[in-house]
Amino acid sequence: MATRSWVSSASGDTDFPIQNLPYGVFDDGKGARLGVAIGEMILDVEKIDHELDPSLFAAPEWNAVMAAGPAVWVTLRARLTELLSDESHRTSIEPRLVAQSQARMLMPFRVTEYTDFYAGRNHAFNVGTMFRGPENALPLNWLSIPIGYNGRASSVVVSGTPVKRPWGQLKGPDDALPRFAPSARFDLELEMGAIVGQPSSGMVSVAQADEMIFGYVLLNDWSARDIQAWEYQPLGPFQSKATATTISPWIVTRAALEPFRTSTPKRERPLLAYLREPGPMIYEIELEVTLAPDGKSETVISRTNFDQLYYSPAQQLCHHTTSGCSMRVGDLLGSGTISGISRENRGSLLELSWGGKEPISLDTGESRSFLEDGDTLVLRGAAHGDGYRIGFGDCAGKIIPAGDLPDWAQE
Amino acid sequence: MATRSWVSSASGDTDFPIQNLPYGVFDDGKGARLGVAIGEMILDVEKIDHELDPSLFAAPEWNAVMAAGPAVWVTLRARLTELLSDESHRTSIEPRLVAQSQARMLMPFRVTEYTDFYAGRNHAFNVGTMFRGPENALPLNWLSIPIGYNGRASSVVVSGTPVKRPWGQLKGPDDALPRFAPSARFDLELEMGAIVGQPSSGMVSVAQADEMIFGYVLLNDWSARDIQAWEYQPLGPFQSKATATTISPWIVTRAALEPFRTSTPKRERPLLAYLREPGPMIYEIELEVTLAPDGKSETVISRTNFDQLYYSPAQQLCHHTTSGCSMRVGDLLGSGTISGISRENRGSLLELSWGGKEPISLDTGESRSFLEDGDTLVLRGAAHGDGYRIGFGDCAGKIIPAGDLPDWAQE
Repeated sequence: MATRSWVSSASGDTDFPIQNLPYGVFDDGKGARLGVAIGEMILDVEKIDHELDPSLFAAPEWNAVMAAGPAVWVTLRARLTELLSDESHRTSIEPRLVAQSQARMLMPFRVTEYTDFYAGRNHAFNVGTMFRGPENALPLNWLSIPIGYNGRASSVVVSGTPVKRPWGQLKGPDDALPRFAPSARFDLELEMGAIVGQPSSGMVSVAQADEMIFGYVLLNDWSARDIQAWEYQPLGPFQSKATATTISPWIVTRAALEPFRTSTPKRERPLLAYLREPGPMIYEIELEVTLAPDGKSETVISRTNFDQLYYSPAQQLCHHTTSGCSMRVGDLLGSGTISGISRENRGSLLELSWGGKEPISLDTGESRSFLEDGDTLVLRGAAHGDGYRIGFGDCAGKIIPAGDLPDWAQE
Repeated sequence: MATRSWVSSASGDTDFPIQNLPYGVFDDGKGARLGVAIGEMILDVEKIDHELDPSLFAAPEWNAVMAAGPAVWVTLRARLTELLSDESHRTSIEPRLVAQSQARMLMPFRVTEYTDFYAGRNHAFNVGTMFRGPENALPLNWLSIPIGYNGRASSVVVSGTPVKRPWGQLKGPDDALPRFAPSARFDLELEMGAIVGQPSSGMVSVAQADEMIFGYVLLNDWSARDIQAWEYQPLGPFQSKATATTISPWIVTRAALEPFRTSTPKRERPLLAYLREPGPMIYEIELEVTLAPDGKSETVISRTNFDQLYYSPAQQLCHHTTSGCSMRVGDLLGSGTISGISRENRGSLLELSWGGKEPISLDTGESRSFLEDGDTLVLRGAAHGDGYRIGFGDCAGKIIPAGDLPDWAQE
């Protein structure tokens, strides 16, 4: 495998060395196109001699390449590695590089359907403790099922998209009836997103599911805790999770993450056979969250690792198909919030501030229980190899005010 | 308005008189095309002189026509009414009619996302009583929120598609751990589906929501009650609802249903202002369900009316947008199970057999608590006008066996 690119910014301190080659969609003012990140640059994929069907690259989304299947994935990655590492291609390729600083990133793929899981043991325990008390914290089914619910694909946005504080029905514990107001407990959730790159019909095994996954993104599942608390019984979260889900702009491929495979945590209860993993199915990816109040510097509010997830994305995807549910190219699976064991490893403000009772301190001297207007949240993540890292780029969103209530909604 | 078509089968006992003109996609062996039902025939829409952009009719799905907006909806309906009622067009149009008996019906539109509501008061009360006892039957939030959850669009199929009994995790009340087995409590749910024909971004009013709805279909939300009971806490139904959702093949337009508008039932608790209806927002549509064991005759097992729904589809759609969730052309909203007050008006076997404790009798002499392999379920519905009815056609599905467990899932 090539270990060095002739692109100078691809060596040293970068998310995007030659070992990464993540896929995105960019616009440098000349229209939206498919690109590959290399150092501080983007290679415009359409114009290179890739020896593949040009129609795969015609639309500004990676869905066609995903649908083309694993053989194409391998061919494309090998060709890109060759072009960007072999010095002989420098003359022809270098003019086709675009600086990331000159480009706006767009959604890297069209989200077909979006499912969000709840596969982090520590998060489930923490939230369960707050919502139902420590005795009933972990639901009975949790150690047997990768619990998930269907989310709203239309709400998935790319990093940088402002996030408007939602209106919704809120009911305080002492109120007789709800009122319609902006969420006062708006939160982030630190997750990874797995992108389904091959379709299925009927049940698939964990091993097959793993092969269906094209790549991964960072994912922030913005959550309105007050809307959620009032609406979620008996059919689960709905509007509380439908404001926005932000993803990072670069699809880091499964191929790039292979060296970082590891095993999920020890099972606390044996799994049914269909859910058992035939090998390591999760990845060592260090994750962090920063919060910056409007116009101020950022504070790291959480650090954790993808390998804390109890159920791997492959297990989630396998379970998703048990009922006969067919999966399609472009389906996005949120992992669920990835919290570690200690307080500083928690992946949501709900957990960090323990339901608002223990506000966290920022380096600016301010404190936070939940998000305030003007706050910018950034998720970052990287797998660390020998002398390089496979990074995801920023997954950022800024909270903007809820705005005025329309006339027809005034009491 | 024209009251009679020159198509002879469009008068008298038919679901599809000139007042209906529902939209479907058919294949008579010459490829999938857009069609309009008239009596026992289908008019191939692509070939008529409709004076509209031909690209609207190019793909075998009604999404492009929906996206074109209300002015096109009005123009197309007026033109079809003229062509099929004015005798002068008979010579040119008659050769373009295809007998429904010679055509296979396909999905009438591409489902963008699928949301299922729980907006029937009697159903929610009945199910709540069985799951949580009569004191906690109706969740506290139910009289304030049209409760809904996101379903799986990839599972929506057209009438006639066989429905394979799902495998899933089941846990009996006395079992310590779940097992992986075919659902033994597989059920139907009698619903209506509202099809979103115009997109939105940001919150819309109930009045705006009503204008966004293009039309309606019958909808059977197949449900595995045993999978649901074990999986649904705390994030709602997931695999229990992902096997299949069957819809009737003809989109009955909102325009055709206008004469049957009526008001939703009396509010038991005042609604927040944003959810109040500015006028009648539901329709009088008589509904029935039949069950036929394999090779045997059918029994009507339920009769009810769409007007029993507590929250109208417009209210559901408005609530769906409160958090800022954008809606798209082709989104499908299941109404929730529509049960009437009496036992014979219940829209699911769960309710009809009261959780399996009171099996229902069929005319064949057999009884049913839940669905058995080989059973065919048909939903039918019609609004009754003066001398005509606006029907939906059959919404049918036959249960086929779960099949063998793959090797990798054997314990």
